[in-house]
Amino acid sequence: MVFSCKRGYHHGNLKTALIKAAMKQLQEDSLESLSLRGLARSVGVTPTAAYNHFADKTALLVDLKSAALSQFDSFLADALKDIPADQPEQRIRAMAHAYLAFSSVHPALFNLVFNWVPDLERLTEEFMVAGGRGEELLREEIVGFLQQQGQQPDDYQAAIASLSAWSMVHGITTLLKSSTVEAIIYCHNWPEDLNARDCDGCYRMLDHLVDLTLAGLRTGIPLIERHPPSPA
Amino acid sequence: MVFSCKRGYHHGNLKTALIKAAMKQLQEDSLESLSLRGLARSVGVTPTAAYNHFADKTALLVDLKSAALSQFDSFLADALKDIPADQPEQRIRAMAHAYLAFSSVHPALFNLVFNWVPDLERLTEEFMVAGGRGEELLREEIVGFLQQQGQQPDDYQAAIASLSAWSMVHGITTLLKSSTVEAIIYCHNWPEDLNARDCDGCYRMLDHLVDLTLAGLRTGIPLIERHPPSPA
Repeated sequence: MVFSCKRGYHHGNLKTALIKAAMKQLQEDSLESLSLRGLARSVGVTPTAAYNHFADKTALLVDLKSAALSQFDSFLADALKDIPADQPEQRIRAMAHAYLAFSSVHPALFNLVFNWVPDLERLTEEFMVAGGRGEELLREEIVGFLQQQGQQPDDYQAAIASLSAWSMVHGITTLLKSSTVEAIIYCHNWPEDLNARDCDGCYRMLDHLVDLTLAGLRTGIPLIERHPPSPA
Repeated sequence: MVFSCKRGYHHGNLKTALIKAAMKQLQEDSLESLSLRGLARSVGVTPTAAYNHFADKTALLVDLKSAALSQFDSFLADALKDIPADQPEQRIRAMAHAYLAFSSVHPALFNLVFNWVPDLERLTEEFMVAGGRGEELLREEIVGFLQQQGQQPDDYQAAIASLSAWSMVHGITTLLKSSTVEAIIYCHNWPEDLNARDCDGCYRMLDHLVDLTLAGLRTGIPLIERHPPSPA
């Protein structure tokens, strides 16, 4: 079926409309409550028309996550556009800020990007491209930073360096997003200067953590034991 | 009401039974699907008997999270019991391993600990104590490690150092737990040596990241700008 009569949707057009409607619903609802039937209703077509484009809910979520990943990647890339290429440290810091900002501006998309992963055989070509772009952006800057320090990381070392920066930023972002840091400051004997209740306080913590991560990377990526040591 | 006839539960006893039943249900169900009514049914008492102990679902979840936090803390503390106190680096590494292991052995409890935080005014005395213990354990080792390096961190620096190690471990744990790292390895051009499909591969990544974090901490916690710079 190439054309659907209702509302004049045609192939591609309806698919896009369904993704758009899902994206909008996700701002207020959980991933679990999304349904193809409900989305079909919301754009005024029959469930059958929707099922022509998505075999099941997973197929919809894969495309939805591709769209969310693209939005996330653009958000990160935008943060870099005014910072010269030869300033990797500033670019890494700007990406870290954008990462935290995205989790607060688009919490539902952030959840979709980081808390839902389909069976790998369900991934589409589009997803495969979108899926790696954010990490690629980060890794490029990390490698630039290491090279400025006179290091020549190989692929494995570059991946580990990038994963370490990513993990740190992801960790503080999710601990802040879930109010875990705020709760622990409240429960606990942490110094008053540590404040997770306002933006300034959160970005200050993030900056300290970026400083420490870059300090670690500056010391050089250790000559890494790539495979588990053989049993003695 | 001090005694309830049904099943001979008395005050305290029923409360514990409800928490235990909730803990068990959480192994298979989501936080959302827990209900006081359902739990009362499962231990064979009336909803009213359950409401005598928990004013509402939040009150139940606060106690449930206290219990989960205690279990998590014991898990971390157990990992330290065979490592001498004067080896903070090994102790930090062991805690990192235990953190990742807990997320895999007790995924539902891990979610409760890190993805659900009540309004702070709902926190109980018990929660306040349990809430900070894990971080306290980590911070003690981090301070020990820094002191071995000849550093004398003040409270703020110690908190930032501990937060940086925590964020890194939390980040890689949640990226592994959600299959994000596995998906990105699959989608992307990462070196084959990076493997998130088996335990060895995951712990190897974690070890590299701990190495880098400790390398950063070894360079010294920077003299930190504690308050945002005043506007020029």
